[in-house]
This record gives sequence, structure tokens and C-alpha cells, in this order.
Amino acid sequence: MSKHKILLVKDIIIGMSDGLTVPFALTAGLSGVLDTNHLIIVSGISEIAAGCISMGLGGFLAGQSEVEHYETLLQREYYEIENVPHLELKEVEDILMAMGVEEALSKQVALQISKDKDRWAEFMMKLELEMEKPAVNRAAVSAGTIAVSYLVGGLIPLFPYVIMHDSKSGFIVSCITTLISLVIFGYFKSKVTGQPVLKGTIKVALTGVIAAAAAYFLAKAVS
Amino acid sequence: MSKHKILLVKDIIIGMSDGLTVPFALTAGLSGVLDTNHLIIVSGISEIAAGCISMGLGGFLAGQSEVEHYETLLQREYYEIENVPHLELKEVEDILMAMGVEEALSKQVALQISKDKDRWAEFMMKLELEMEKPAVNRAAVSAGTIAVSYLVGGLIPLFPYVIMHDSKSGFIVSCITTLISLVIFGYFKSKVTGQPVLKGTIKVALTGVIAAAAAYFLAKAVS
Repeated sequence: MSKHKILLVKDIIIGMSDGLTVPFALTAGLSGVLDTNHLIIVSGISEIAAGCISMGLGGFLAGQSEVEHYETLLQREYYEIENVPHLELKEVEDILMAMGVEEALSKQVALQISKDKDRWAEFMMKLELEMEKPAVNRAAVSAGTIAVSYLVGGLIPLFPYVIMHDSKSGFIVSCITTLISLVIFGYFKSKVTGQPVLKGTIKVALTGVIAAAAAYFLAKAVS
Repeated sequence: MSKHKILLVKDIIIGMSDGLTVPFALTAGLSGVLDTNHLIIVSGISEIAAGCISMGLGGFLAGQSEVEHYETLLQREYYEIENVPHLELKEVEDILMAMGVEEALSKQVALQISKDKDRWAEFMMKLELEMEKPAVNRAAVSAGTIAVSYLVGGLIPLFPYVIMHDSKSGFIVSCITTLISLVIFGYFKSKVTGQPVLKGTIKVALTGVIAAAAAYFLAKAVS
């Protein structure tokens, strides 16, 4: 998979993990204390809207900040390269020596890297600050992907309450559809993230079940 | 700040961002369609429980997977170092040449790095796979921090509905307390993440307000 595709799939996973879990748990919780589905649906829609915006817009703004933060630190590296090149050169040498390169050789390599200021700054960002360059124009795409995935994930546990007539049957159908979806989603997530499939699938499904159980019993308790 | 403290603050930010936003938006949405606070409180508590578990447990399991994934790839690098060292050595040379180091010098440096297999494997992880070593024992602490921060963040918009007698006054007090909290939180978040304070604070507050407005009007629309 290309790096671009990996990032896309990661965003889908981020959005769908929470989308399948939280609206599922919330509607399950409310189904324990309400007989009719109307308010469950209203709550579910409110929650999905809030979650989409919090994760999507929040993610977008965080992505933007990350790009700005990277740029600020990069400019500082360029500034140091211009103004205190001897100190920056020493830092390159130190990093190389920490990798196991001998001092004399480190000095030579540092000199060669420092011939190109862009590469030099990039070296410092990656190896001194341990920061990877964030993709500048991805923030919007990433936010949109997360929001849509949350929406899709959230509608799965919600729609049974729309088609069923009472909260008990809505709850049962919602549990079945969501559990199947969690298992399918857990399977693909494990494949993509390179985890053992069985273990990964169980983890995903269990998180959803525990969240729903907690919401269900807490709702009953305070009701 | 130490690296450990930075990660802790990051987790607090992750949990509190969503905690202040989603329960605020959900309860605001429901206050538009319900007169009494009882069901708003039940929904809010269900949502906070679900969110804590989804983010906390989900985060814990994701952190565990990340450690396992890193270990798997690290073992693969060690395997390649043992079995096809000439190919791995060539990869080190290529990485160095891409940094602007001349071929002859790259060969010398690669040979020196390859003397210590641990350093060699670490070099490949960092510069070939661009993966930073995840902190092995942090997953549980990180999950706990996120969950507690979500809980604290979520209780702020919820408690006004507990102390006020009807949903309208609950909504007004919730808006005031949450907005103040979002501004304070946005201020600290901006300071910690090195953003311009005014811009950063506005971003955080705006996300909460937009999410709440969307939840409010959608709840009204479907009600």
C-alpha cells in the first residue's frame, strides 16, 4: 500500500472505531430506560453530529496546528544553521556518534550533510527533534475521512431503532448488527495494522461490548 | 518539560478535548427537545461512560498493538541483518547517500554502524521505516489518563443539569461553564503545543460551539 492509502485507511479506522462504539453504547444505555425509540434516535443523532464535528473539525484544526508547529521548528533550525553553524555541525556529529560512527568519520559526514542546508535542516528535524514532516494538504482530507467514517459507523447501531417499533427489539437488532459490524471491522483493522487477526478482532468487539454494558448499567442505575 | 511529562499532557489534552465537546453538545442538543433534566443526565452519563471506555480501553489496546507491531518489524530487521546483511548494509548506504553523504563515505559509515547489531536495527527502524520506539509500559497509564480526562471534561457540561431545575436554565449554565472551561483549556493547550495562544484558544472554543449548535439544531429537526 502507498503511504497515502495507509493514512487514508488509518483515518477510516480512527473514525469508525469510535463511531461504532460510542453511539452503540449510548443508544443501548438509553434503551434500558426508555420504552419508545423516539428519544433514543434523537440522542443518537445528536451524539453522531457532535462526534463527527469534534473528531473531524477537531482533527482538522489539530492537523493544521501540527503543520504550523513543524514549520516553526524548521524555521528555528534554519535560523540556527545560518547563525550558529558550528553548534549545529557539532549536533550532527553527536547524533552520528550516538549511532556508532567514529568521531573523525562523523566530522566528515557532518560536513557533507551541511553542504545542502535543506538536507541539513531535515536531518536535524528527523534525528534531533524526532519529528516527521506532516503532509501539508492532508488535514482537510483527513478530517473529512474521519467525520464520514464516524457517521457511517454511528448509523449502524442507530438505524435498528428507526426500523423497529419498541426499544427492546431495537436494542436486540442493534446489538446483532453492531456486533457483526465490529467483528468485520476488527478483522480488516487487524489485517491493515498487521496484528494477529483473532486477537485484533476480539479486542475491537470487546471494547464495544464493554462500553455498551457500562452505559447500559449506568443508565439503569441513575434512572 | 521531560518527554514523559509531554506525553502525559498530550493524553490529558486528547481526553479533555473530546470530553468537553461531545457531552456538552449532546446535552445541549437534548435540552432543546426536553423540558426536564432527568433524561439529559441519563444520556450524558451514558455518553461519558461510553466515551471513557472507547477512548481509554480503545487507546490502551491500540497502544499495546503498536508495541507489538514495532516488535514484529524490529524482529524482521534483526532477521534481515542476520540473513541478508549485504542487502541491509546497502540500505544503510542508500539512506546516507539520500542525506547528501558521498558514496565512499557512506560505505565506511554503514560498516561502522553495522558493527553493533542493536544500533543497526534501530537505525533501520528510524530511518528506513520511520518508526519511533513506542514506550512499552505507557499504554496503561496513557489509557487511564485519557479516560479520566474525558470524565472530568464531560462532567463540566453535565453538572449544571444536575443542579438546575429545568432544561432551559441547565442549558444556559452549561453553556457558560463549558465555554469558560473551553477557553481555559484552549489557553493551556495552545501554550503546551506551542501555538499562538489567541488562535489556539479560539479554535478549541469554536469546535465545541459548532458541535453543540449542530447537535442542538439536528435534535430539534428530528424531534
